[in-house]
Amino acid sequence: MARIVQKFGGTSVADLDRIRAIAKRVKREVDAGHEVAVVVSAMAGATNQMVGWVNGISPLHDAREYDTVVATGEQVTIGLTALALQEIGVKARSWMGWQVPIRTDDVHGKARIESIDGTALLARMAQGEVPVVAGFQGIADDGRVTTLGRGGSDISAVALAAALKADRCDIYTDVDGVYTTDPRIVAKARKLDKITYEEMLEMASLGAKVLHTRSVELAMKERVRLQVLSSFTDAPGTLVVDEDEIVEKALVSGVTYTRDEAKVTLIRVPDRPGVAADVFGALADAAINVDMIVQNVSEDGRATDITFTVGRSDLPRAIQLLEPKAKALGCREVKPDASVCKVSVVGVGMRSHAGVARTMFDTLAAKGINIQVISTSEIKISILIDEAYTELAVRALHAAYQLDAA
Amino acid sequence: MARIVQKFGGTSVADLDRIRAIAKRVKREVDAGHEVAVVVSAMAGATNQMVGWVNGISPLHDAREYDTVVATGEQVTIGLTALALQEIGVKARSWMGWQVPIRTDDVHGKARIESIDGTALLARMAQGEVPVVAGFQGIADDGRVTTLGRGGSDISAVALAAALKADRCDIYTDVDGVYTTDPRIVAKARKLDKITYEEMLEMASLGAKVLHTRSVELAMKERVRLQVLSSFTDAPGTLVVDEDEIVEKALVSGVTYTRDEAKVTLIRVPDRPGVAADVFGALADAAINVDMIVQNVSEDGRATDITFTVGRSDLPRAIQLLEPKAKALGCREVKPDASVCKVSVVGVGMRSHAGVARTMFDTLAAKGINIQVISTSEIKISILIDEAYTELAVRALHAAYQLDAA
Repeated sequence: MARIVQKFGGTSVADLDRIRAIAKRVKREVDAGHEVAVVVSAMAGATNQMVGWVNGISPLHDAREYDTVVATGEQVTIGLTALALQEIGVKARSWMGWQVPIRTDDVHGKARIESIDGTALLARMAQGEVPVVAGFQGIADDGRVTTLGRGGSDISAVALAAALKADRCDIYTDVDGVYTTDPRIVAKARKLDKITYEEMLEMASLGAKVLHTRSVELAMKERVRLQVLSSFTDAPGTLVVDEDEIVEKALVSGVTYTRDEAKVTLIRVPDRPGVAADVFGALADAAINVDMIVQNVSEDGRATDITFTVGRSDLPRAIQLLEPKAKALGCREVKPDASVCKVSVVGVGMRSHAGVARTMFDTLAAKGINIQVISTSEIKISILIDEAYTELAVRALHAAYQLDAA
Repeated sequence: MARIVQKFGGTSVADLDRIRAIAKRVKREVDAGHEVAVVVSAMAGATNQMVGWVNGISPLHDAREYDTVVATGEQVTIGLTALALQEIGVKARSWMGWQVPIRTDDVHGKARIESIDGTALLARMAQGEVPVVAGFQGIADDGRVTTLGRGGSDISAVALAAALKADRCDIYTDVDGVYTTDPRIVAKARKLDKITYEEMLEMASLGAKVLHTRSVELAMKERVRLQVLSSFTDAPGTLVVDEDEIVEKALVSGVTYTRDEAKVTLIRVPDRPGVAADVFGALADAAINVDMIVQNVSEDGRATDITFTVGRSDLPRAIQLLEPKAKALGCREVKPDASVCKVSVVGVGMRSHAGVARTMFDTLAAKGINIQVISTSEIKISILIDEAYTELAVRALHAAYQLDAA
């Protein structure tokens, strides 16, 4: 007997038929003798509708009231899912965040879970009842309902699995696992049977949208075995696990890409101490995240170029902020470029093998793709290229690292 | 300075524009220096949609989960209304039933309010904040959300007004007050400026749908001054108050009708003790409410006819139950008749004036309308007639009691 948390996303509970279908999946685990807790998102589209209402009434809205309205989406789904389970003979009961309770801080709209008291749920599970818990929501110390921000239901599921000491947390979604790359670009993309937390974390933050970064971080920290699988097929999914559990480590596990970044180049920045701190300090103060940074070597000892990337949606604000600053510093120009793409290769095997970067540069050079910026970590290499070459680069790298399915 | 509870029904909060409009009404009271608490229903149609989902998943559903789902309707509206108030500069905060708390029994789906702790709300109101409270919902002792059944938001508003010792409870709806009769039938129907609790109670239970019977009962018991008014006009509404407050008591205040009843006649029932108890006991055991009852005098001392009315939707069950029983008792026949209408005249002035019944019978006789059953109370007379004569009877009585507008 195992203890399992099953989490179903918005498309998996989009209408009554799908809710009935996921109830059958839950019943299968219960019938197999497992203790099961379920976490559900709002019906697909419900949250967007409510966000639209809130913004319609008050564009700069009070986040407390936003949370009160938006949290109703999950409340509807837990009730309907509990009913669907009861209807096929499974004992079930819905639980809102405040009923569990799932305690969070008071940063409304993007609260963080502080603690989950699993006592009541465990008692019910021991009696064969399935708790159906609202994802995405919790309660702050002042008794107000909070929400966790987008992707929050995954975080709820992982945190609940940790609190219940579950053997596994199954994340049901509309794809059947984690792929070596985006199957819409590379037809030969393969589903991975297993992936390490570290790789999954890199892939999530590098554009693979299957899991939310914070949920992977939490799973890694709490050592929750995650499984990503489809609620529409019976295919086995991808297990996200500790590195020890993976015997044969691939050099590269996946190729990801994101078009969410934009490049900014400061041309002829005076080459003196403190300039970089001044520029990046100003961006940080404006809560603009900077990702890749390259500073060229100064040729004449007087001025250099600094290139970096910011989120594409932050680009207009970044430029507005940088132009007066660049003028004050004596730069020649601030040059924005939104038509870039970041392509990355990820794999824990890199740690022990040289030559991964070389394969990457050779492969791109052979296709005539110019690399604009490079950044690396222990288990990933990211490069910035002209976005027109995105598909070409991803396909070439996927083949070069022998990730193509046979 | 007065303390006021303002309650807005589903059509008054049906969309964002209407929510903005009611926020302005609340602001007007706040600007006039009053302490205001607001109670809102779900947006028109929202509750029905959710009831449809619940029934779609589970026709014989668990009432606890029904409540969890259906209570979300009011949760959406309190958040949006609080935001609309904030947007026009009124301090406001939403409150769900469990946050207030509004404690109820655990009869899910039609719970009764047991107590409301107004402490937190009063403290906020004293600081100039407007609490926006979810109608229709509360919390049971086991921490589960409950709902009060249809019309429940009116009850929430009255109970809250009592708990806050409010000077007035304004019920905003889509009609601008209580009328002497249904204006769709009688063009000359007049809006009443004042009506007594007792009259309002009779009229609510006799088919005037403007207020829920239970909310009037509660207002009468707690002596809450009610006002019924429209959220779409600025016309003054109807005050529901103590009899002492009404100087000139009308003989008849209103004429109501309902087509929700059906007539059953047991023909040639043996005339012996215990037969009526047997018949009506069986109906009561099946939770079938009996309203009007007439038993004819037995002519031959052996058998008589018994006529009574039940809710029209209960008629098939009543007949199914009565047929074997009638056979066993030796009755000749059970005769159902669903095409009847109950017409009533209501007025506290009746207590001190004779002749009201006589005017009723004379008026109906003059129009050739046959009276099938009569029942009376201290302040009302009801008669059952063929439903084809409904409009004719209502118009004739409205004129006969001089209720027609000039």
